[in-house]
Amino acid sequence: MPSRPGSESLRPLFWPTSVAVLGASNEPSRIGGRPIRYLKEGGFPGPIWPINVKGGTIQGLPAFKTVDELPGAPECLIVAVPASAVCDAVESAAKRGTRAAVIFSAGFAEADEAGKALQDRLVSISAETGCRIVGPNCLGLFNSRHGYAPTFTASLDHGHPKPGVVGMVSQSGAYGSHLFVLARDRNIGMGCWLTTGNECDVDVSDTIAYFADDPATKVIAAYVEGIKDRDRFLGALERARAAKKPVVMMKVGRSAVGAAAAASHTASLAGTDVVYDAALKQLGVHRAETTEEMLDVVYAATRGIFPETNRLGIVTISGGAGVLMADAAERHGVDVAPMPEAAQARLKAILPFAAVRNPVDTTAQFFNDMSLVTEFTKTILAEGGYGAIASFFTAIPRNRETGGRLKEALAKATVDYRDRLLILCMLASPEMTQEYEAAGYLCFEDPSRAVAAFAALARFGRSFARGAGSPPPALPVGAKPIPAGAALGEAEAKALLASAGVPVVPEGLAGTAEEAVAAAETLGYPVVLKISSADILHKTEIGGVRLNLADASAVRIAFGEILACARKEKPSARIDGCLVAPMVTGGLETILGVVHDDAFVPVVMFWLGGIFAEVLKDVTFRIAPFGLDEARAMVREVKGFPLLDGARGKPKLDQEALAQALAALSVYAYANADRVRSIDVNPFIVREKGAVAVDALIETK
Amino acid sequence: MPSRPGSESLRPLFWPTSVAVLGASNEPSRIGGRPIRYLKEGGFPGPIWPINVKGGTIQGLPAFKTVDELPGAPECLIVAVPASAVCDAVESAAKRGTRAAVIFSAGFAEADEAGKALQDRLVSISAETGCRIVGPNCLGLFNSRHGYAPTFTASLDHGHPKPGVVGMVSQSGAYGSHLFVLARDRNIGMGCWLTTGNECDVDVSDTIAYFADDPATKVIAAYVEGIKDRDRFLGALERARAAKKPVVMMKVGRSAVGAAAAASHTASLAGTDVVYDAALKQLGVHRAETTEEMLDVVYAATRGIFPETNRLGIVTISGGAGVLMADAAERHGVDVAPMPEAAQARLKAILPFAAVRNPVDTTAQFFNDMSLVTEFTKTILAEGGYGAIASFFTAIPRNRETGGRLKEALAKATVDYRDRLLILCMLASPEMTQEYEAAGYLCFEDPSRAVAAFAALARFGRSFARGAGSPPPALPVGAKPIPAGAALGEAEAKALLASAGVPVVPEGLAGTAEEAVAAAETLGYPVVLKISSADILHKTEIGGVRLNLADASAVRIAFGEILACARKEKPSARIDGCLVAPMVTGGLETILGVVHDDAFVPVVMFWLGGIFAEVLKDVTFRIAPFGLDEARAMVREVKGFPLLDGARGKPKLDQEALAQALAALSVYAYANADRVRSIDVNPFIVREKGAVAVDALIETK
Repeated sequence: MPSRPGSESLRPLFWPTSVAVLGASNEPSRIGGRPIRYLKEGGFPGPIWPINVKGGTIQGLPAFKTVDELPGAPECLIVAVPASAVCDAVESAAKRGTRAAVIFSAGFAEADEAGKALQDRLVSISAETGCRIVGPNCLGLFNSRHGYAPTFTASLDHGHPKPGVVGMVSQSGAYGSHLFVLARDRNIGMGCWLTTGNECDVDVSDTIAYFADDPATKVIAAYVEGIKDRDRFLGALERARAAKKPVVMMKVGRSAVGAAAAASHTASLAGTDVVYDAALKQLGVHRAETTEEMLDVVYAATRGIFPETNRLGIVTISGGAGVLMADAAERHGVDVAPMPEAAQARLKAILPFAAVRNPVDTTAQFFNDMSLVTEFTKTILAEGGYGAIASFFTAIPRNRETGGRLKEALAKATVDYRDRLLILCMLASPEMTQEYEAAGYLCFEDPSRAVAAFAALARFGRSFARGAGSPPPALPVGAKPIPAGAALGEAEAKALLASAGVPVVPEGLAGTAEEAVAAAETLGYPVVLKISSADILHKTEIGGVRLNLADASAVRIAFGEILACARKEKPSARIDGCLVAPMVTGGLETILGVVHDDAFVPVVMFWLGGIFAEVLKDVTFRIAPFGLDEARAMVREVKGFPLLDGARGKPKLDQEALAQALAALSVYAYANADRVRSIDVNPFIVREKGAVAVDALIETK
Repeated sequence: MPSRPGSESLRPLFWPTSVAVLGASNEPSRIGGRPIRYLKEGGFPGPIWPINVKGGTIQGLPAFKTVDELPGAPECLIVAVPASAVCDAVESAAKRGTRAAVIFSAGFAEADEAGKALQDRLVSISAETGCRIVGPNCLGLFNSRHGYAPTFTASLDHGHPKPGVVGMVSQSGAYGSHLFVLARDRNIGMGCWLTTGNECDVDVSDTIAYFADDPATKVIAAYVEGIKDRDRFLGALERARAAKKPVVMMKVGRSAVGAAAAASHTASLAGTDVVYDAALKQLGVHRAETTEEMLDVVYAATRGIFPETNRLGIVTISGGAGVLMADAAERHGVDVAPMPEAAQARLKAILPFAAVRNPVDTTAQFFNDMSLVTEFTKTILAEGGYGAIASFFTAIPRNRETGGRLKEALAKATVDYRDRLLILCMLASPEMTQEYEAAGYLCFEDPSRAVAAFAALARFGRSFARGAGSPPPALPVGAKPIPAGAALGEAEAKALLASAGVPVVPEGLAGTAEEAVAAAETLGYPVVLKISSADILHKTEIGGVRLNLADASAVRIAFGEILACARKEKPSARIDGCLVAPMVTGGLETILGVVHDDAFVPVVMFWLGGIFAEVLKDVTFRIAPFGLDEARAMVREVKGFPLLDGARGKPKLDQEALAQALAALSVYAYANADRVRSIDVNPFIVREKGAVAVDALIETK
């Protein structure tokens, strides 16, 4: 496949110098009329060329009958004609020099096979000409800085977007419009907005990458239903993180994907939405569960401050509100650390009845003396060491007079701390709220939502500071590629994994009882004997395993019994003999796994074994490949982690060896992604010193 | 203690025929001025008597100099004078016949010891005269149906409450005012509102009980920081449930209580907020985490429809919104069950491109033809079998013309289904929203919050239908009371529990080795021997336990060894001999416990044993006493429940025997609540048939 064009190729889409609208209408509420109306209303600075077979004048502009009649190639072509007429027009324009096309028309891949063929032709046109195509079946886009809104959403009827630092991309036209309306209602400035429709060319990943590179975009919002190209998606998100631009994403379909999960145990776990969760967490994306949460975090992020600490100072005029906000903080993993002792003493001296630890409560005394807000806020800013202060003022700013005085009192406190996050929880008119926002405060009505938004900002801060973390380790030089299409026996699977840096128990293959004894003598007693046959996957069930053999005589007897069992139970199996391995005792059983997921091939899983896996589904996921940092995070994430960390008076186990194995497995799985269906390292025993795979299975395609 | 007066005694508080304000002020924004202003503004129908030492005229009303000068006893006295002047005035009024007093004044138990003494005097006055007292240190109350608002909250400056079916009680004055403002902003009608202050007499429980009995109150909202009398609190909540009135409660202090938890393992678990969770869940209360959630559920409950089914029909004009709402449904335990096949076919016939399973999507076609809303909604109402329909219409009702047409289209669909819950998710002006609400719809902006509110209504519906569930079993006739102050050995503890109906392993006490052998012969081998001494609690640690003794000789040796160990390790212990019990094998180890919690003595805990208790804290709580229904729910609630239910190919265990033991233990603990500190039945082994306590410990006070 040819490499994708870079994000500069999307510039003609967002900043065209000239635009033509194919299927233009004189009626400003029609699909071909709205874009012309919006371009005119917005003051688009370049020429607007309506195209309509009837010619004449459209919304006051001279119209052209065909693309070919235009005075030149429009840099961007907007298409609102039936599907059958789309391809020829786009091809003609692209060949004349058009660099971007936005296709509203439906009737493509979403409709039927004929539509799919038409869409395939669009893909070819884009690839051949380099013209970037949005849609088909999309609702268009806007760039509010350019007075440019080629879209037929009715949501601009109530007001054009306010320019600002947010870039939004949506795979749903209707929900994308809904999100834009909510953002505008909330006075959130949005620079660019784009709906991707059928994504024949420009998709969510392209758009996120463009926003990551666009200097005017500082916050990226995305509504996603599914992605197809994991590497470009992950790459775009990593690009945004590197540029320290927060990505807030709604990925819907949690429950639907869950319901449609495949039947097999492994697949049903990996195929569910938890893999999206893992991927987005890895990339530092805030995954919003609800629209409100999305807008809260986007809104808070527009302030451009992402503290690395999650310590929050809370100031209220009601003890109840303080308790409630402290509860919310605990729920969202925010640290309501106490004020330094000296600062507490200073506040106590100002107001003896005040609570000064954190949450700080100025009490109702504040109503009599607003200088308390100044003194308290300044002290907390100067000495608290918090990532932000959240202050609760109930409906006080609803009264213009007291609202104004409160703003002054705050201004005095914050004059030397303009770069700090101040979050106000208050009920006020939209106008008063905008006055406070203009002064640099974030304003929320609900204190719990304010705390949640701060938690998200601090997570961004930590993600930006951490970056991608330690890189995946190099694939060992001697790593053997996994053969395609082969059935791999236990010994082969373990040999492959060992070559990739996953520690496996040493073992020998014995064709005879005496070879088994010799191997046991070398490895040291007690040993385990296991049937070795690519045709026998479930060894225990056919009596193919004998544990804890203490001496040569026990090995000899066991060898004979195992082969007899195997021949009886599986007469047709090709038998290599028995594997001889030292008996591994003690330690904790874990499971390392690799599975395929439609979106994020391959995915690495980490489980604790036994009831943790079977009853509690105590598992965590990561997208391969990853480095030690992510691997260590996986280890700490499972519910049973205390068992690895010295719970119940047991010794602490070798978590580092475990993490190294996970990272090595992720690199190996990624390198062999096209041939591996699944890898199951079970059990992988973690001991006080070291860790070792005792059994393993690799399924290939 | 004398029995508390019934809720009719609060009537003079909410519906007085005459009111006096002590400490009345001519200044309508002062603490003694606001209540007079609000009473006048509200049109309070009875006489209003200002009392001020200066006499004269106050806000146009003739003032009196003392309580004694009043023409009669005011049915309710409002008090806004310094603390030192409060008691005499209240006593004087109460003796003349005043039935209720509301005390704004601070400086009582919240301040210092002298204040505490004043408050104690108020308690006596109330008890002696029967005058019900609210406060001191409270913000007052209102009854909007009576034009009656004796409060000094500034929140009425922006508008008086709209009468309605909600009754609200708050332990925080400031946050109670905040909640009222939010409710008024949202057009939620509130009949009564009361802040309890220091609760010298009238408390949250009294007020909830009053609302439960008050025919005009249909929805109860409460903001709670802590309760003192568990029986009255639980009784009031049960009364509300019996009256089918939903209670929505914010209980704050989750994190604070957590942080202040006592040091000991058991106490730190029981003393935390999870016990409130358990109590409120038992009583069918909706515990709201955030203010928004509280108001959402209160708002939704005002419709007065509480479906017993949690099946939700979803109709949208955007596929994306449908997926998002289905996700929210899964998160909140709501069942997005598919439409019946026949109904699906009918909808498909109307609109072939529509999604018709559930969520149902009318697609953008709806914009062209609003009769689709009528047809789809009617079909889903008639044939879906849902507890409610939630419909997503984005900003359509923001346009007056389309908003009006949509309302008509819905009216046609719902004309025969006025008693059904219809929830609209839409962006509209407050006026348009109120028009829809007047037509009987619930309106939400955020679809996820709409789904969450429906989930709460359906939980209320199930709680009302279920009621209190099966009653606690009777305490067995032969149940022996737990002796106070005694140290109880294992044998005694088990004997007590056995008398209370908790099955314990049969055992005998042997003073000599030969008695031990005789007991073992009777009980059957293999047996267990354990040291029996009230002075030795941790038997295993001193070598006082021997398991799996297979014959008489083994018993004899073990007996000698155990006594030798005990005498060596604990020379001063009084030793009764050894307990002999059959060795219990197989089954699953669980733990039944009873602990004290400050608010909810006694609390019963159920754990799975081993790592489930020690690593995963897999525990569930209930307030004692309770019946089999709650006990069964406890059993099903722990994460490890699959282990009791046949996981990993093991047999299903006797959950009913386990539930019976839990219910019996709860009844026994409650009957002995004043003498028990804790009970620990560990392990309690659940087997395929039956269950049995193998060890137990009772700590007394």
